[in-house]
Amino acid sequence: MSAEIPTEQWAQVVEKPGGPVTYKKIPVPTPGPDEVLINVKYSGVCHTDLHAMMGDWPIPPKMPLVGGHEGAGVVVAKGSLVDDISIGDHAGIKWLNGSCLACSFCMQADEPLCPSALLSGYTVDGSFQQYAIAKAAHVAKLPKDVDLEAVAPVLCAGITVYKGLRESGARPGQSVAVVGAGGGLGSMAIQYARAMGLRVVAIDGGEEKGQSCKALGADAYVDFQSSKDLVKEVREATPEGQGPHAVLLLAVSERPFQQATEYVRSRGTVVCIGLPAGAYLKAPVFDTVLRMITIKGSYVGNRQDTQEAIDFFRRGLVKVPYKTVGLSELQKVYDLMHEGKVVGRYVVDTSR
Amino acid sequence: MSAEIPTEQWAQVVEKPGGPVTYKKIPVPTPGPDEVLINVKYSGVCHTDLHAMMGDWPIPPKMPLVGGHEGAGVVVAKGSLVDDISIGDHAGIKWLNGSCLACSFCMQADEPLCPSALLSGYTVDGSFQQYAIAKAAHVAKLPKDVDLEAVAPVLCAGITVYKGLRESGARPGQSVAVVGAGGGLGSMAIQYARAMGLRVVAIDGGEEKGQSCKALGADAYVDFQSSKDLVKEVREATPEGQGPHAVLLLAVSERPFQQATEYVRSRGTVVCIGLPAGAYLKAPVFDTVLRMITIKGSYVGNRQDTQEAIDFFRRGLVKVPYKTVGLSELQKVYDLMHEGKVVGRYVVDTSR
Amino acid sequence: MSAEIPTEQWAQVVEKPGGPVTYKKIPVPTPGPDEVLINVKYSGVCHTDLHAMMGDWPIPPKMPLVGGHEGAGVVVAKGSLVDDISIGDHAGIKWLNGSCLACSFCMQADEPLCPSALLSGYTVDGSFQQYAIAKAAHVAKLPKDVDLEAVAPVLCAGITVYKGLRESGARPGQSVAVVGAGGGLGSMAIQYARAMGLRVVAIDGGEEKGQSCKALGADAYVDFQSSKDLVKEVREATPEGQGPHAVLLLAVSERPFQQATEYVRSRGTVVCIGLPAGAYLKAPVFDTVLRMITIKGSYVGNRQDTQEAIDFFRRGLVKVPYKTVGLSELQKVYDLMHEGKVVGRYVVDTSR
Amino acid sequence: MSAEIPTEQWAQVVEKPGGPVTYKKIPVPTPGPDEVLINVKYSGVCHTDLHAMMGDWPIPPKMPLVGGHEGAGVVVAKGSLVDDISIGDHAGIKWLNGSCLACSFCMQADEPLCPSALLSGYTVDGSFQQYAIAKAAHVAKLPKDVDLEAVAPVLCAGITVYKGLRESGARPGQSVAVVGAGGGLGSMAIQYARAMGLRVVAIDGGEEKGQSCKALGADAYVDFQSSKDLVKEVREATPEGQGPHAVLLLAVSERPFQQATEYVRSRGTVVCIGLPAGAYLKAPVFDTVLRMITIKGSYVGNRQDTQEAIDFFRRGLVKVPYKTVGLSELQKVYDLMHEGKVVGRYVVDTSR
Repeated sequence: MSAEIPTEQWAQVVEKPGGPVTYKKIPVPTPGPDEVLINVKYSGVCHTDLHAMMGDWPIPPKMPLVGGHEGAGVVVAKGSLVDDISIGDHAGIKWLNGSCLACSFCMQADEPLCPSALLSGYTVDGSFQQYAIAKAAHVAKLPKDVDLEAVAPVLCAGITVYKGLRESGARPGQSVAVVGAGGGLGSMAIQYARAMGLRVVAIDGGEEKGQSCKALGADAYVDFQSSKDLVKEVREATPEGQGPHAVLLLAVSERPFQQATEYVRSRGTVVCIGLPAGAYLKAPVFDTVLRMITIKGSYVGNRQDTQEAIDFFRRGLVKVPYKTVGLSELQKVYDLMHEGKVVGRYVVDTSR
Repeated sequence: MSAEIPTEQWAQVVEKPGGPVTYKKIPVPTPGPDEVLINVKYSGVCHTDLHAMMGDWPIPPKMPLVGGHEGAGVVVAKGSLVDDISIGDHAGIKWLNGSCLACSFCMQADEPLCPSALLSGYTVDGSFQQYAIAKAAHVAKLPKDVDLEAVAPVLCAGITVYKGLRESGARPGQSVAVVGAGGGLGSMAIQYARAMGLRVVAIDGGEEKGQSCKALGADAYVDFQSSKDLVKEVREATPEGQGPHAVLLLAVSERPFQQATEYVRSRGTVVCIGLPAGAYLKAPVFDTVLRMITIKGSYVGNRQDTQEAIDFFRRGLVKVPYKTVGLSELQKVYDLMHEGKVVGRYVVDTSR
Repeated sequence: MSAEIPTEQWAQVVEKPGGPVTYKKIPVPTPGPDEVLINVKYSGVCHTDLHAMMGDWPIPPKMPLVGGHEGAGVVVAKGSLVDDISIGDHAGIKWLNGSCLACSFCMQADEPLCPSALLSGYTVDGSFQQYAIAKAAHVAKLPKDVDLEAVAPVLCAGITVYKGLRESGARPGQSVAVVGAGGGLGSMAIQYARAMGLRVVAIDGGEEKGQSCKALGADAYVDFQSSKDLVKEVREATPEGQGPHAVLLLAVSERPFQQATEYVRSRGTVVCIGLPAGAYLKAPVFDTVLRMITIKGSYVGNRQDTQEAIDFFRRGLVKVPYKTVGLSELQKVYDLMHEGKVVGRYVVDTSR
Repeated sequence: MSAEIPTEQWAQVVEKPGGPVTYKKIPVPTPGPDEVLINVKYSGVCHTDLHAMMGDWPIPPKMPLVGGHEGAGVVVAKGSLVDDISIGDHAGIKWLNGSCLACSFCMQADEPLCPSALLSGYTVDGSFQQYAIAKAAHVAKLPKDVDLEAVAPVLCAGITVYKGLRESGARPGQSVAVVGAGGGLGSMAIQYARAMGLRVVAIDGGEEKGQSCKALGADAYVDFQSSKDLVKEVREATPEGQGPHAVLLLAVSERPFQQATEYVRSRGTVVCIGLPAGAYLKAPVFDTVLRMITIKGSYVGNRQDTQEAIDFFRRGLVKVPYKTVGLSELQKVYDLMHEGKVVGRYVVDTSR
């Protein structure tokens, strides 16, 4: 099958911090003994990709860099140690490209916390190229009945919100508030929560977002723009009026964070997912102690979370709205992101 | 046996917010159908008692008030519904005097969160009197081989730190940092942690405290007064240099709190117990999310925690240093507290 | 409101072990300080009621006995200590009529294991009368929009299967096999499992049952009557072919039990609920150890499980087929049970 | 450093099922890219090694076979992908030589359940040779202050009982019964349990064993040989007389198993570890359900359990009695095992 693999390929390359991306031909890499080469067909575009290009996060990315960490494609080559994946299998490249699999975090299924983790499109080249490398043990396994274009955004956004819901500890029948429910992550969070038997109080701004949240299955919608008393309204939207068992913070700033600890149920959990630069969590000690509130950070999912999140998608329980453009047009997507004009998710098609 | 119960008794009464306490004779109360009357022999004195007298917490206490919530004594009368306690049994009065036992918190063994909870020495009269009332289902059951004088401080301080350790999720063999390890709660936390198979990094200020922490079983001591890099030192004091699995914050202010999230192990838990007036928790979002840190508040233990904490004490695994004075001298203890001169725990003897 | 309570009422009384039940007038009881009097409107009839009448279980029931433990009605009187229930509230009488609320089981929300538990229609009079007593802290709270007739069978059967599903530890997205899926409990188990985000492999005998299981939401049906290799078929009906994460045994005999440990996923859990007289669990040690299988017994739910099970019902996620007859016709229902002619659930109307 | 590695080495080889072992020279193997070569200094001898030689277990071992799965030694060579282990590091070979690290079990830290697991001294050559191969990600990491001779038996026996204690769910302060407490595994179980803050009821036969159990820290000893009512005695040896929270079955046959479900506390857990050929678990359904008892199998620990078990040993909290002989004398050890004359653990020294 290696006859089909070209020596050169199209890629979008960041040559220096700040960008822009350059669409050009680069060599096709060769997988090591524990790696696979994936012919990426589609890749989602995430805000993190923009941060990687701009180099505005505390950890500096590799340079030059091929970004992208939501790549869906076909395995076309593999190393000598790879037994459980076959040429022709469908596979996904996600944020966690690889990890040591032997440190105390990896040994406890917390591989996203591995100090030697490889990050796709950040510390190693990612999915904005036609042929990308990934550690075989870390690729997402994609059943063949899963559409490669549609699943791309699940590989980061979907996994992340699914993980957050699992970390929340909320059980079927309990309620979860989703802050930022009208955005890309939020719309997936509503659907995952519903599929997990949870009840959803969607929180966002504006009537239009309220309608889309309800259409996706939210049991209630609280509009922070028009609400006179957000804390009271969120509490009243939950069964006993005692507030949601969990809160998913997808768009964190200090204000929503503080509010969350006010309306979350006593003994409830506030899960922080969003990453606004330089932001701080803040909560009153007295209330946190007397109401036994838990605040926790949730990062990306581990490999098991990945497969579970994909499985919910495969069963048709989660739908992700996206718009597809050619890989060659990536810079335009970044430009729209910069201007705050991206609603939902963009997917790039590596064939054009 | 009711022949032995007098109609009048000595008590320390707060007549108005701000105090002082008045040592005087008041009537002995009569237990309701689901209550017991306890002849309090000894009672610990807690900082909360001072707050109750001063009325400087958000929730106003009853007035006039008999304070005290660490009372150890003998059951001398009981209501018609009380089956599982006998006259002559030893029992303890704790912060949680009673709760509804039927709300969703009580139904899930979180009775400290019951909206109708009765608080000893705060919303109902407490243990600074010779005969006190408590809901039978809530009294601490004290085996007869437990010394009533020595166990008194366990009834609040002991239970609270034991609960915090349980809430931390730390497993035997893992390590926990105790911030404020040299104080009254801290010294108990070190001993409970050791009895639970945990390793302890004690944090406090000064050499003397370091010696006492190590004598109680701390594996390491970090002196925040002399340390040049507290975060680094705490990390280095743990097995893999990755920081403790849990942190118990007994003396919270914003600074120790922020530091705790810096040195706690990734995936670790910071448990907030102390209640400095008006304080806020504060932690950087980026680190909390990427290292998946949990921050949680822990209040007093439930009834099961109470019995477990007493059981560790009974087995001689936890010793509490205390000084005993007559109940009549309570105001002097408050005066010392006010001046910050109380080290360890005071116990009052209700017979004098 | 007490003016409305008569002094006499209609009841079905078992005068001696072996029955039959006698439909006659008996006095209306008076609630104690911690009890409520419920005007039972409808009551489900359970196989346990037949066992109670026949006296063929290890623990002897009280005699004479008013059976019944699935009673739904209206609170008409209450004791002096009852604060959280009002006259006119709707409430349910369930198997657990009361417990001490103070033993180590009650303190940990395992009140069904309380050594002093009172059992409705077994150790205390139950719901086959127009006015029944229950401990206020133990009655099921029924929102007023819940139909009293339809909810009756939920009060034992529904709670029991919901508890079993919770005890199974299966998470949303995972699969559970329900053995005896076509019966009364089984049909509720399928619906609860679906509402909790689980996938269901229904196991029972005959085509008709298969159709009803699938109509209720089962993802697969395995017919033990026609199957040539039940273990293989159940495994193949699960996502990876590795067997279900959990098995609910509603109709246990040694054979289905042994099979369950063969087809359950490694690390999976077999939950035993059914109570065939004199039966034994049996499983090969080698397989149980090497595949790390868990086998556990699940009894009735606690009070929190009760409210959660009712909440799923209230939301329309669980429907229970039943047939209603007059309380006066109870013996006829027992006769049908004896003959094995009862499919689904019978409900008695106490007004006739 | 590879200059030091010879081309030939001494080994004990099983040439055909049934044995015996032949002490002879064989080639030193070469590690693959993800493997290390360990110069085994000492190896413990386990009953499983005898089963492997005899070929009397359901799964056939490789032939010819070098047995052994408790090997402690020094890393002398490593493959190109091995980053986290250095030449000169100390490392242990355990039962689980390797696993795929990518299946759903491996992804959830349950690598002992991996369908592709490699088993040392069974499906791949083990530690009864001077130079043995292991997957780098699976070797036990041994700190240099750990004695290689003394730690050998911890690598299987120690890990196994530690895992069993973890699986039991027993918390510090609770009690666990150890059945077969006087044997090799039992004596380690007592010590691990104590180090984990648990209380131990040791069960075995004879006065001598009772003395050794108590010397190791058991709180109580029940002698099944002299006891008139074992179930009653075990219950009485626990705090509330309600039985131990967990039972560790190290020497299972149907009788101790049934007894365990009788004396374990309601809601307690019986952990099955021993593997008598052809044995069946058996428990009455009625009791298991009404008392909500859990029965579970526990196999070997995962990698994290391994490191934790070694850490307890390193801290001096667990001591293992053993006798050392030359590797050349292995057959004599097997002969003693056959005759049932092995008490405690044998260790072989590969240098003679």
